[in-house]
Amino acid sequence: MNKNYIIPNEWSLIEDVFDDENVKASESLFSIGNGAMGQRANFEENYSGATFQGSYIGGIYYPDKTRVGWWKNGYPEYFAKVLNAPNWIGIHIKINETELDLNTCKVSNFKRELNMKEGWLSRSFVAQLTSGDKIEVHTKRFISIDSNETGAIEYHIKALNFSGEITFSPYVDAGIVNEDSNYDEYFWEILEIIEGENSGCILSKTLKTEFHVSTAMQVAFALNSKEITLSQQTKVEDKKLTYTYKVSVNEGDTASIYKYASYTSSLNYKIEDLNAAALSNVENANKLGFEALLNTQIKSWEKIWSTADIVIEGDVKAQQGIRFNIFQLNQTYLGTDARLNIGPKGFTGEKYGGSTYWDTEAYCIPFYMATKDANVAKNLLMYRYNQLGKAIENAEKLGFTNGAALYPMVTMNGEECHNEWEITFEEIHRNGAMVYGIYNYVNYTQDFEYVVKNGLEVIIAIARFWHQRANFSEAKDKYVILGVTGPNEYENNVNNNFYTNYLAKWCIEYAVECLNKVKHNYPEDFERVISKTNLKAQETYKWLEVSDNMYFPFDEEKNVYLQQDGFLDKELIPVKKLDKSQRPINQKWSWDRILRSCYIKQADVLQGMFFFEDKFSKDELKRHFDFYEPLTVHESSLSPCVHSILAASIDRMPKAYEQYLRTARLDLDDYNHEVHEGCHITSMAGTWMSVVQGFGGMRVYEDGMLSFNPQIPQEWKSYSFTINFRGTIIKVFKSQTTCKFFNESGNQIKMFVNDKEVLLPSKEFVKL
Amino acid sequence: MNKNYIIPNEWSLIEDVFDDENVKASESLFSIGNGAMGQRANFEENYSGATFQGSYIGGIYYPDKTRVGWWKNGYPEYFAKVLNAPNWIGIHIKINETELDLNTCKVSNFKRELNMKEGWLSRSFVAQLTSGDKIEVHTKRFISIDSNETGAIEYHIKALNFSGEITFSPYVDAGIVNEDSNYDEYFWEILEIIEGENSGCILSKTLKTEFHVSTAMQVAFALNSKEITLSQQTKVEDKKLTYTYKVSVNEGDTASIYKYASYTSSLNYKIEDLNAAALSNVENANKLGFEALLNTQIKSWEKIWSTADIVIEGDVKAQQGIRFNIFQLNQTYLGTDARLNIGPKGFTGEKYGGSTYWDTEAYCIPFYMATKDANVAKNLLMYRYNQLGKAIENAEKLGFTNGAALYPMVTMNGEECHNEWEITFEEIHRNGAMVYGIYNYVNYTQDFEYVVKNGLEVIIAIARFWHQRANFSEAKDKYVILGVTGPNEYENNVNNNFYTNYLAKWCIEYAVECLNKVKHNYPEDFERVISKTNLKAQETYKWLEVSDNMYFPFDEEKNVYLQQDGFLDKELIPVKKLDKSQRPINQKWSWDRILRSCYIKQADVLQGMFFFEDKFSKDELKRHFDFYEPLTVHESSLSPCVHSILAASIDRMPKAYEQYLRTARLDLDDYNHEVHEGCHITSMAGTWMSVVQGFGGMRVYEDGMLSFNPQIPQEWKSYSFTINFRGTIIKVFKSQTTCKFFNESGNQIKMFVNDKEVLLPSKEFVKL
Repeated sequence: MNKNYIIPNEWSLIEDVFDDENVKASESLFSIGNGAMGQRANFEENYSGATFQGSYIGGIYYPDKTRVGWWKNGYPEYFAKVLNAPNWIGIHIKINETELDLNTCKVSNFKRELNMKEGWLSRSFVAQLTSGDKIEVHTKRFISIDSNETGAIEYHIKALNFSGEITFSPYVDAGIVNEDSNYDEYFWEILEIIEGENSGCILSKTLKTEFHVSTAMQVAFALNSKEITLSQQTKVEDKKLTYTYKVSVNEGDTASIYKYASYTSSLNYKIEDLNAAALSNVENANKLGFEALLNTQIKSWEKIWSTADIVIEGDVKAQQGIRFNIFQLNQTYLGTDARLNIGPKGFTGEKYGGSTYWDTEAYCIPFYMATKDANVAKNLLMYRYNQLGKAIENAEKLGFTNGAALYPMVTMNGEECHNEWEITFEEIHRNGAMVYGIYNYVNYTQDFEYVVKNGLEVIIAIARFWHQRANFSEAKDKYVILGVTGPNEYENNVNNNFYTNYLAKWCIEYAVECLNKVKHNYPEDFERVISKTNLKAQETYKWLEVSDNMYFPFDEEKNVYLQQDGFLDKELIPVKKLDKSQRPINQKWSWDRILRSCYIKQADVLQGMFFFEDKFSKDELKRHFDFYEPLTVHESSLSPCVHSILAASIDRMPKAYEQYLRTARLDLDDYNHEVHEGCHITSMAGTWMSVVQGFGGMRVYEDGMLSFNPQIPQEWKSYSFTINFRGTIIKVFKSQTTCKFFNESGNQIKMFVNDKEVLLPSKEFVKL
Repeated sequence: MNKNYIIPNEWSLIEDVFDDENVKASESLFSIGNGAMGQRANFEENYSGATFQGSYIGGIYYPDKTRVGWWKNGYPEYFAKVLNAPNWIGIHIKINETELDLNTCKVSNFKRELNMKEGWLSRSFVAQLTSGDKIEVHTKRFISIDSNETGAIEYHIKALNFSGEITFSPYVDAGIVNEDSNYDEYFWEILEIIEGENSGCILSKTLKTEFHVSTAMQVAFALNSKEITLSQQTKVEDKKLTYTYKVSVNEGDTASIYKYASYTSSLNYKIEDLNAAALSNVENANKLGFEALLNTQIKSWEKIWSTADIVIEGDVKAQQGIRFNIFQLNQTYLGTDARLNIGPKGFTGEKYGGSTYWDTEAYCIPFYMATKDANVAKNLLMYRYNQLGKAIENAEKLGFTNGAALYPMVTMNGEECHNEWEITFEEIHRNGAMVYGIYNYVNYTQDFEYVVKNGLEVIIAIARFWHQRANFSEAKDKYVILGVTGPNEYENNVNNNFYTNYLAKWCIEYAVECLNKVKHNYPEDFERVISKTNLKAQETYKWLEVSDNMYFPFDEEKNVYLQQDGFLDKELIPVKKLDKSQRPINQKWSWDRILRSCYIKQADVLQGMFFFEDKFSKDELKRHFDFYEPLTVHESSLSPCVHSILAASIDRMPKAYEQYLRTARLDLDDYNHEVHEGCHITSMAGTWMSVVQGFGGMRVYEDGMLSFNPQIPQEWKSYSFTINFRGTIIKVFKSQTTCKFFNESGNQIKMFVNDKEVLLPSKEFVKL
């Protein structure tokens, strides 16, 4: 049962009925963030119904004790998890001594809007309290892109049928827990609570990791839009600071509170400066006022959209879906801080503990690369470069030597955060994605300097890993890679996964290619890296011995590469012949049954062909697509986008559109019945790719050339997207009858359109 | 670092130094039990040092909540675990107001003895307390074989250097927890505490399972061996009943307490009768007195040894080792109750939660079958028969239909108690052992009636499982079994494990053979079973389609069956070339490295050849032994015995003896550094097999014929063993120069010795 309560709108998410069944889902969907902090759409006032509270600060984590049923050697004893941070949005409200709580009121005229164009969340409603008092509430909040430690809230209450007293009790509460904590453990220790006039803060630190965070608030008031001053009562509890203000109203009056809040953390400040910095942030915000801050926010989002928007005409739900994806990606990561990355749930939930998966390299980098300046994607690469030491340690724990690196499956700080042996130890293809991310970046930006200065060390360490991880099979007279899990996690501990073997071979070849290039063009850097990594030419010959003789399972009769050894021993029954009652198989079948079935969770052989499409003929692509797609259940959010793009590239637009629909509104329509836990942020980048690389057919080749092959689904009137290609802003417009390219920067640029080389010198260029 | 502190002795375990480092290990080794209840060798008096307290009642368990890092569909939500039961041994001792606690005393003349011939545990020591008072203590205890709900303790204290007061505070304590409980949860609820004169009891019940248990005690006293009466103070706490008695002593006096205790449980009584039954047990014990009870105990053990003993001359440690194994097996299971089974740790520890593994069918049945009456082995089979319904449910949970059964990997009550997918769902070969156990029993006892009345239903349900579990591979044009874990748990989720495929094929063939036999000879039973199981002839043809076309991986060049598909892709480096620092690999290597290595945890292909030795030529056995044994690390306690037996059967006595040494004193010398957690009970049956089936070469064939092929390790002077063969007690004696058979029953019996058919009519028969 998918949800279907979000009102279609081109620029906003809108909910117009209060339904307590939807509260948690909406808390996820209407989340706000600015790449540095984020907030689920929890209510400001008290809510006694079911809710999932979440405030998050980028880079703040806690190493929780690993829990498994049966310990396997190699599991990390502790792993980082996303932490719920002190509550900054809270305002208890009383109307004549009765607390406002939507769970106990009669609620009408409810409306919630997440305005994606301008980056704010609003909510309005009429509530009749248990006392009979009736109020109309309008509230709006945002987290500032411009001043990225600050959030602002306005909260207006109109007395509809009474005269009396309205009590505002804004607070900061550091006594919060995680939903997924063991036995309600607290992860925060409170160090200091500072009270003041209309402003105050709490200094707290995380246990073990000792991140220090100051959470400050400052408040102001108005009556009927006129600023007023109210006398303050202060309550300091163990972990909470609350100010209480009372205002007398007559029927028809509107009383307002403005709350400004700020997190400052020891990631950016000396501990002793944290409180002052946070208090200064809220003081400045208060000085500027809510309207001025909001205007800046609108301008910031205008800038983001200018190089990232996708416009779809003829399908409002498609338009809303794609913008929601772009919006959430930008709320999660803006690329200004190489210590941060893109968690699978962003700032919309806790699930998946750690922050960074191979999703970043395989799915997110293309989006950030094409919609922002090159340094944003570079920061994502630097994140991994900075964690190379830990990746080498991680490989050492598993028995590798000589500087071989295995990047973790899930991580916050470079350490492994996952603990299923078949994933943690065996889903090693992720290591290839690290190199693919670099390759992709270099092609797109032509910034080979990144390889020279940083990337090469990562590439060498990973080539070493693959060299050691393969072994020679006398039976096959080839090198094999045994005991892996591919991207298709519905197979575990298999031998010679095509995708993994292919990436391993490619990583080694790319490593040698980069080494040669650096040797000839950057001899000093070459010496530095060679000396730092203690690499001898002889060692690279051994790598090539492996890559030159890598084994790939192939079936002559079907003329396809096999996902892994023995794949054809399975019963090959297409998904469409599976009874609906058996789907999704990950909920209906026991794990062993899933494993021995032929069903594929997400692209695996096809993931490799997606990455290296130019290495395969169109016939090969078609043959493999036709063999594997019918066996694919797409039970990973990362699956449909790859299939959509491949289908478009082999001229199968109906299939491409079918797969696009599965990815575009995954969360808005809650296909997987789990949006209450948070949104699927990383797969949103896949949706973006489905339009730009899929329908738009955008490709960038090793030689740096850009090409397009625009197609359009029958269901749409037109679509357009904008990309930043090495500083040139190109807009591509495609309707059912025409195709136009706009060069918004005016720089001359050579590219291919539908395999024809063209020059893009001015505003409007080609009509097809 | 193996332990080596147990004094070699032919009939006893002896420890003669008090070392707090050895306390937990000795608590395991010196455990006592009677098949119905058991007790670790915890001290009666208080001990403040490191200790692992354990009292156990057979069949009493608790369904604990499953904990895993990542949930997989199919895991049981709850699983049964062995419960620590109320403490019945405890006696707090005070000497002039100072508590006796070996952790704070000066201890000398310490001696502990577990007398295996007579079935009792004693301890003596001199202790100088912190007060300076010095005492000599002698204590002895046993759990009665004859009256199997009762334990008895005598505890003598001699005042060596003081006159004053000795305080005895015997108690029953139901406020106990499990070592492996989550967050010190209590599993027992206390219902009633009954106090009386010198006797009392606590009625408690287990949470959820609601097993009710009454734990009673009664005490008596003596001064210098003369019975005395002491006045009693009673203390009733929430979960504990304590009586306190003070006795005045002069220097040189010996004060004694006798404590009799009893567990009665709702497995055997109505709840309302439990307290009376327990109190009656201790009253009767007290009337008989300690000496009389002990004499009965000695006789009970004499009877057990008369058909189970193995005598080894020329090697005291070997003698002690084999008797310890036989002794512990008998303490764990005596075969009188079909609701009970043989836990891997018996009554010596909590580990491995549930009670029953395939160890019972594969290793333990031969021991019980050959050393006791046939009904004992039959009770072990009935245990599985009675759980057939749950095995069918278990298979249904995994998607099987039509009455197919999958017996659990670990169980207490028929429900699965394990939660690693690669074991729980995939180590399905266990299902074959269920049928092999029946086959083995029928051959040995010729009691085909068991198949007719009970076994056939189990055999049918398991044939159905194998039929459904295999699938047809078009690529191989054969039936394959994908995604299994074989007995070698250092491979997970492999395809076409030879052992599993072989058992599957054999199970189906045996099922059809049994069906035909029952059809012809027991037509009425046939109709009953056919109707109950709704089996049609047509279905069995489909089974045979699978068994007739089962695939077995085989390498032509090496001329061996492969453990599984792809085994030869591994690097085959013999164990002896592995650096010692890498061993045991299960502690030194991460799991993925173990999996992709060639190393074998325990017999796998060879386990199959051990079970079905007569189906393979000696050359085949040798070839497979020579291929697999060098790759085997024997890191399961169940591995060496199989290799010892196979080595003996292919005339490799030095290898057989080498492997025998690894199994015989596993716990006594603590090879695996884990004896503190309990003893490896089930592998002890393997040790017994190493002597009787290995060195003695005993075999029983499908036609019921018995044969021997006695050999002797160079290191021994002689050995002899006794078996009960269909009611005939046969003793086999083998020295370096002679071999004799004794027929202690005097029934004529035909058998083969060294392939020559002989008749065993009288006491002494053959000398070789």
